[in-house]
Amino acid sequence: MPEDNASHRIEESLRLALARSCGVAAPPRIAAAMQHAVFPGGQRIRPRLTLSIATACGDDKPVLSSAAAAAIELLHCASLVHDDMPCFDNAGTRRGKPSVHVAYGEQIALLSGDGLIVLAFETVALAAIADPLRSAALAIVVARAVGTPYGIVAGQAWESEPSPDLVAYQRAKTGSLFAGASMAGAAAAGHVAEPWGALGFCLGEAYQVADDIRDVLCTEAEIGKPIGQDEALGRPNMVHQFGVAGAARRLKDLVEQAAESVPDCPGQAALKAQIHAQASRFLPREAARVAA
Amino acid sequence: MPEDNASHRIEESLRLALARSCGVAAPPRIAAAMQHAVFPGGQRIRPRLTLSIATACGDDKPVLSSAAAAAIELLHCASLVHDDMPCFDNAGTRRGKPSVHVAYGEQIALLSGDGLIVLAFETVALAAIADPLRSAALAIVVARAVGTPYGIVAGQAWESEPSPDLVAYQRAKTGSLFAGASMAGAAAAGHVAEPWGALGFCLGEAYQVADDIRDVLCTEAEIGKPIGQDEALGRPNMVHQFGVAGAARRLKDLVEQAAESVPDCPGQAALKAQIHAQASRFLPREAARVAA
Repeated sequence: MPEDNASHRIEESLRLALARSCGVAAPPRIAAAMQHAVFPGGQRIRPRLTLSIATACGDDKPVLSSAAAAAIELLHCASLVHDDMPCFDNAGTRRGKPSVHVAYGEQIALLSGDGLIVLAFETVALAAIADPLRSAALAIVVARAVGTPYGIVAGQAWESEPSPDLVAYQRAKTGSLFAGASMAGAAAAGHVAEPWGALGFCLGEAYQVADDIRDVLCTEAEIGKPIGQDEALGRPNMVHQFGVAGAARRLKDLVEQAAESVPDCPGQAALKAQIHAQASRFLPREAARVAA
Repeated sequence: MPEDNASHRIEESLRLALARSCGVAAPPRIAAAMQHAVFPGGQRIRPRLTLSIATACGDDKPVLSSAAAAAIELLHCASLVHDDMPCFDNAGTRRGKPSVHVAYGEQIALLSGDGLIVLAFETVALAAIADPLRSAALAIVVARAVGTPYGIVAGQAWESEPSPDLVAYQRAKTGSLFAGASMAGAAAAGHVAEPWGALGFCLGEAYQVADDIRDVLCTEAEIGKPIGQDEALGRPNMVHQFGVAGAARRLKDLVEQAAESVPDCPGQAALKAQIHAQASRFLPREAARVAA
């Protein structure tokens, strides 16, 4: 699908969801905080992936794919709000703005994340009007991508373990939501979801490697959040282990793997091309040049 | 439905949900924390209400009513975990045990609440196997009971407002989940949900008045959490405003109103009797005697 059409569908679907939950009847501060958490967005990489895959699968019921894309992004935003809180990363900025707890306080940040999670599932349920069975399949895919034992909540929880399972940790922390975004796109279009998981995991790992590179090579202004965090917080970073060139090679390999994993579907060739195009955005231009 | 049958269905449905999300694949500490938050339970008043109403409406698809009851209780437990955290009530005990953040730390408490919210919606979606349209209706009812603008998240968020709308606050903080529990019972049995909201709001307000009485008349051992909290935290308490007798009269009136509000359904008479029986548990015996 054309880039600007995808972007329009994602923003419109998010706008409608927030309008339902954060209108005049809502307590004003949480309404403002939820808006702050969602708009303006980052690159919306995950919901774009959902729509790209739905399109490749025929996208015969776009009400469902739009809802799926919005739900994935709402859950991503919720996880950022909670991850930034003082008991986790204590991050003061996000997407170039004060993080939600800095702008609205910890209580509202905690509640905003909860509210965004609920809103994601409400959004999927409302799409049942187009196809109740697909809506349920979507809700299950989405829940598994974010909950325990394999989703982003589990990924974050591995950080609190004295001897974490590092493979499970990486898959859950970043991979699960990319896998969920992929499977949700397929499920929304009435395809079997599971074969699409591998694509998401490859892209999720690629995104993680790109994040490691950004953390080392970029400025705070370029990525809208503090840099050098991995070193400061003692977290593993592929650039520290393998150098910039090694990390960039791994990034390229993962994007290749992702494209090769695309299951049979009507729009297979176009989707493969799009995966390469999307992945080129994982790094800001200057970092991509240095890493090349 | 016989009391012990309801209790069995609720515990079994919760046990299955937790087994899915907190098995050996899950990070051990969050798995333990989620179990700690759900078992052993309190009186399970809200899921009992769900099952009572489903039964009164014919309960022709018990897979759905069991899922609805579990979802309502999981969301209630999630709200308790988050409410007890230091940035809110900073409560050290809950149901006679250390609260989740005391036992497992703030990170795990925050994540456990998130995980329980996700699990609630997954549980409802899995029940689509019995009836996908009803499952979607249930998810919408449940989401509205807990999210913004009218659910418990909104209720909690009103506490952070400089000039809260007190009526909206009370309805959202306690009433919304009782209303959601009622409507979910009807929706699970294929009845139109909305007419059942009033019953839930009356019972929710009754429960809130009983909570005010418990906070003044009971011991910490009787209710499993700190007492005198309303006075300590400067929160409104009906006993302080109207005395024990005034509060007890209001409690009785609300239970009457609740019973009168029961819509037409096959089990109307039995349900009315059950509402009186359930409400008698809102106060421990000694407090009920003093308040009588």
